[in-house]
Amino acid sequence: MAKIRVLVNGAKGKMGTETIKAVRQESDLELVGQTDIGDNLAQKIKETKAEVVVDFTQPSSALANVKAILSGKAHAVIGTTGLTDKDLSKIEDLCVKNNVNCLVAPNFAIGAILMMKFSAEAIKHLPNAEIIELHHEQKKDAPSGTAIKTAQLMGKEVPIHSVRLPGLVAHQEVIFGGLGQTLTIRHDTINRESFMPGVVMAIRKVKKIKGLIYGLEKIL
Amino acid sequence: MAKIRVLVNGAKGKMGTETIKAVRQESDLELVGQTDIGDNLAQKIKETKAEVVVDFTQPSSALANVKAILSGKAHAVIGTTGLTDKDLSKIEDLCVKNNVNCLVAPNFAIGAILMMKFSAEAIKHLPNAEIIELHHEQKKDAPSGTAIKTAQLMGKEVPIHSVRLPGLVAHQEVIFGGLGQTLTIRHDTINRESFMPGVVMAIRKVKKIKGLIYGLEKIL
Amino acid sequence: MAKIRVLVNGAKGKMGTETIKAVRQESDLELVGQTDIGDNLAQKIKETKAEVVVDFTQPSSALANVKAILSGKAHAVIGTTGLTDKDLSKIEDLCVKNNVNCLVAPNFAIGAILMMKFSAEAIKHLPNAEIIELHHEQKKDAPSGTAIKTAQLMGKEVPIHSVRLPGLVAHQEVIFGGLGQTLTIRHDTINRESFMPGVVMAIRKVKKIKGLIYGLEKIL
Amino acid sequence: MAKIRVLVNGAKGKMGTETIKAVRQESDLELVGQTDIGDNLAQKIKETKAEVVVDFTQPSSALANVKAILSGKAHAVIGTTGLTDKDLSKIEDLCVKNNVNCLVAPNFAIGAILMMKFSAEAIKHLPNAEIIELHHEQKKDAPSGTAIKTAQLMGKEVPIHSVRLPGLVAHQEVIFGGLGQTLTIRHDTINRESFMPGVVMAIRKVKKIKGLIYGLEKIL
Repeated sequence: MAKIRVLVNGAKGKMGTETIKAVRQESDLELVGQTDIGDNLAQKIKETKAEVVVDFTQPSSALANVKAILSGKAHAVIGTTGLTDKDLSKIEDLCVKNNVNCLVAPNFAIGAILMMKFSAEAIKHLPNAEIIELHHEQKKDAPSGTAIKTAQLMGKEVPIHSVRLPGLVAHQEVIFGGLGQTLTIRHDTINRESFMPGVVMAIRKVKKIKGLIYGLEKIL
Repeated sequence: MAKIRVLVNGAKGKMGTETIKAVRQESDLELVGQTDIGDNLAQKIKETKAEVVVDFTQPSSALANVKAILSGKAHAVIGTTGLTDKDLSKIEDLCVKNNVNCLVAPNFAIGAILMMKFSAEAIKHLPNAEIIELHHEQKKDAPSGTAIKTAQLMGKEVPIHSVRLPGLVAHQEVIFGGLGQTLTIRHDTINRESFMPGVVMAIRKVKKIKGLIYGLEKIL
Repeated sequence: MAKIRVLVNGAKGKMGTETIKAVRQESDLELVGQTDIGDNLAQKIKETKAEVVVDFTQPSSALANVKAILSGKAHAVIGTTGLTDKDLSKIEDLCVKNNVNCLVAPNFAIGAILMMKFSAEAIKHLPNAEIIELHHEQKKDAPSGTAIKTAQLMGKEVPIHSVRLPGLVAHQEVIFGGLGQTLTIRHDTINRESFMPGVVMAIRKVKKIKGLIYGLEKIL
Repeated sequence: MAKIRVLVNGAKGKMGTETIKAVRQESDLELVGQTDIGDNLAQKIKETKAEVVVDFTQPSSALANVKAILSGKAHAVIGTTGLTDKDLSKIEDLCVKNNVNCLVAPNFAIGAILMMKFSAEAIKHLPNAEIIELHHEQKKDAPSGTAIKTAQLMGKEVPIHSVRLPGLVAHQEVIFGGLGQTLTIRHDTINRESFMPGVVMAIRKVKKIKGLIYGLEKIL
């Protein structure tokens, strides 16, 4: 079977670097190009005949990049944050117009996605819950974005506790309490590699979705 | 709305005693009778006009009890273990014949049911997993029934570790490992009360199912 | 060897009831009496020739009980809270005067004592720490007394997170973070039995201490 | 105050590289030299007037390196494994003869040292325990060396469970069970940095110890 032709935009960034390594390790994927700030993305897509472009860049350039990708008739896997609802609406139109697909995902860690999905289901049966998120001491914001998103998906006001200590990376625990029992769902990340299985899955599946999809959980 | 009329068979046992307490605490349920070994279950159902009979008795009497309940035109919630496939087939016929329903469940702890369900789903995305089950030191068998059932549902040979220590009650942890991340699903039970929300849910739902259902997860 | 003659004061209370069960299970201890509100404790000590009196009663009667015990020439194991520094000073005098000993302990769970002791030592080497204490949802105060005492022993301002959920009993976790590593010390209690090994140890050792000792950690 | 003059032997190895980074970050330490296979360690010590030499090399060269260090009148911090009791005896003599000190430690992670120390103490009070050690799936040996050493220090036959999964690094949990309670001591490592605070502490303290010391726990 022909390999999927992949171009990585934002190739010099931390996530881009990891993505390049991950694509090279998969036998059904072929890395056909790497671009970063200053490169002509549209032209590079044309030259390399890329089928899927993965974008991990800056919020400020996210929409312009997506336009270049979709107009170039390539499918897009977007990890860059900062797209507004209005942006997403435009992207949807571009997908239809160019007959290509786009997957936008703020979090590619499959374990985190499962944690959120299971938490949203568990709360229906065990309605009392609290979230403990634990991160390295240099993380400035609290609570974490993942904790806030988890609570939103649970559709309830769930207390969130934020622990900040050296020696931690990124961890979250959702504890559900019921009569005589507790259920705990915990996700531990130790490095950026944790996002790669999700990115690879997105690359493989983006051709088969219909138009725009927001959130990796939709293609699990 | 009229309350659901509930009779508890095996009322003097540990699970029966808890069930009686639980039924009394719910405003939409009415405890209309309690029976145990030596009592005439069929007659009691008739006298009390019980709509739902909960049975926590012995494996040896399980089938006879179910027959008495279904022939008495009451719905059955069966927590007694030991029913064979052949028994279940007979029960299915009795349900049809008497136009009543029967829910058989080996485990009523909602948290444990969720743990098993989530584990069966997580393994599809994070295919490496191990189970640690931890119980009080007087538990003779290892691995636990719940650990074995979890592994079966996961459809893989999953290593199971059994910890036996005083101070533990009944706990299980399923750890999934992926690139740079782990996902952990843990259930902790501290007493028999943990089964009651599941029993109460079964009482409420058994009227609306169709015939025989095996496993609480089917009605979640 | 002669058994230690033990009298339990507050015999009808929850802790007293557990203590009576625990004393009866130990072959080197003999339960010689049980007293509660309305009984004449001084006279009962005389009649039973009790060597050790365990007191789990009310703060309001704590000092009077200790006086009765020590004046009766029995050693005292006091689990009742509410003794002031002034009270302790008086008790010390009574110990000397009557040539008997007294052990006062606000917490008899050996695991909790060890958790506090280890935490006070670990903070010297890993100076960043946070405490998570988790209790059943009916516990009104937060943070828990044990969490506050742990933080005091650690001699630092340690953030304390309080989780309140049904299905929990009494749990505490102290997390220490260092470069590339974390150390976690956790104590889980499931019932009042957890205090009994500490009470039994106190009964055995109170004869051999000198005068007044405050805190079970001193006799570990 | 004058800085401590430090030379790192095995500078190109993984642990040596981390040690160099760590020494450079401490204001009271000065990195005066780096050596590796092929370099003349004895001469380099002389040239640099190193006061402390840290050695992370191979078991086969460990003894020769220690001899060169101590004969060069420098104190030695040895992380290389493979020294026999006979070797240690020779090293002790060399310390006396040259009036310098030597600290040999198989594990420099302070959290792991504390876990072992606390476990050895906890077992005296809560005599039932099990160890769960969890490592990345590429670790071939099981149980881990740390688990074996922990069990030895606990002086009992403690069951050890070995979990091997991707996404794990190096983790160990010691669970103690008592009546109605459990105490858990857990150490999590995410990278080699975790050893550095222990190495730095050893560099600072090796001047003040007397002769040979084996094990970081002795200088905590």
